[in-house]
Amino acid sequence: MKGLPYISPNAVNRLPKYLHYIQEQLEQGADRTTSAKIADTIGATSSQVRQDLGHFGNFGSQGYGYNLKELDQTVQRIIGIHVPHNIAIIGVGSIGRALAEHMDFPKYNFNLCAAFDISPKLDGTKIGGITIRHLSELPEYLENHSIDICILTVSRESAKEVAQLLYEQGIPAIWNFTNTPLDLDDKKITVQNVDFIDSLLALTYYLESSND
Amino acid sequence: MKGLPYISPNAVNRLPKYLHYIQEQLEQGADRTTSAKIADTIGATSSQVRQDLGHFGNFGSQGYGYNLKELDQTVQRIIGIHVPHNIAIIGVGSIGRALAEHMDFPKYNFNLCAAFDISPKLDGTKIGGITIRHLSELPEYLENHSIDICILTVSRESAKEVAQLLYEQGIPAIWNFTNTPLDLDDKKITVQNVDFIDSLLALTYYLESSND
Repeated sequence: MKGLPYISPNAVNRLPKYLHYIQEQLEQGADRTTSAKIADTIGATSSQVRQDLGHFGNFGSQGYGYNLKELDQTVQRIIGIHVPHNIAIIGVGSIGRALAEHMDFPKYNFNLCAAFDISPKLDGTKIGGITIRHLSELPEYLENHSIDICILTVSRESAKEVAQLLYEQGIPAIWNFTNTPLDLDDKKITVQNVDFIDSLLALTYYLESSND
Repeated sequence: MKGLPYISPNAVNRLPKYLHYIQEQLEQGADRTTSAKIADTIGATSSQVRQDLGHFGNFGSQGYGYNLKELDQTVQRIIGIHVPHNIAIIGVGSIGRALAEHMDFPKYNFNLCAAFDISPKLDGTKIGGITIRHLSELPEYLENHSIDICILTVSRESAKEVAQLLYEQGIPAIWNFTNTPLDLDDKKITVQNVDFIDSLLALTYYLESSND
């Protein structure tokens, strides 16, 4: 969605939760919802929900709430999954393999197109329905195919080098599982870092603060 | 840390970022920092930082900032990692394997004690320095060992059943990678759900909103 207003990182993190809630409601046959119900389910306040969704137009109405089908389309457009995205996995170790095997990419309009690994043993084997290619084929592949997002699941040691190659090839976005800062120009490439330890530390906080 | 004040989920998510920043600064030999520097690095505002840390006592001072060693200890206590936590991995598929092999558990005072899987082929093999046991040994193991956190990386199909077993055994916390709601009483057990797709959707939002 072009020309989006600035919304805070916390609001961005709520967008997927809106989407899951809306799609669950639609699957259950509901046709309307309210900011209060959304807020209650995702652990936000009604005014946060109204403010988040209000950034993108005026499609709820007082006393009526939101039409779920319209809201679904709107939130998909906000997130940007109304258009398809082509994905490649770079590094088929245990994390790359887990993502290829378990993620429901098509549900959100993502196409897993290719996977690469440095290991000659994996070259030509299959994962998640696609054939693994050798990492040396990556530059040529990227020149001939339009990939929007690379999932970076190489080792920590090669993270920066491979990221630099992706950057130079003009890849628009990297989903970074390497626990390594990639130090790329964030005006030219979008990087989302995934750090499992942060989630475990949040869990520990909740565990310890519940020990009253 | 017992008797913690209520802090918002967003503030909880900032705690690990404070910890990483503080520890990086200490590694670089720094001894003091300010709320402005912390805010700048982690993408929050100075007043958010002061408010978050102010929940837990008055240990910054105007014009001087924070003593990093003190702040490190305080944030570790807030998160709860000043005490060790024993961890078991339940399910050694690709995600369980990735976590066992790549997570730096000792750095944050976590002890990976055991791993379990339903596959007879894995029984007795090693991962991350520990021996994989058969899932049927889990109840007896939990009766004889004190485990604080179970990492749930079983298949979606067996998620609820295994979670129920952990709950009945009195396991205090589950780190849930199964993409399945566990429907357990959250007064008796702490559950942290990890959903990779949300991170990918946030990435897509940033990618599409940068296409102006």
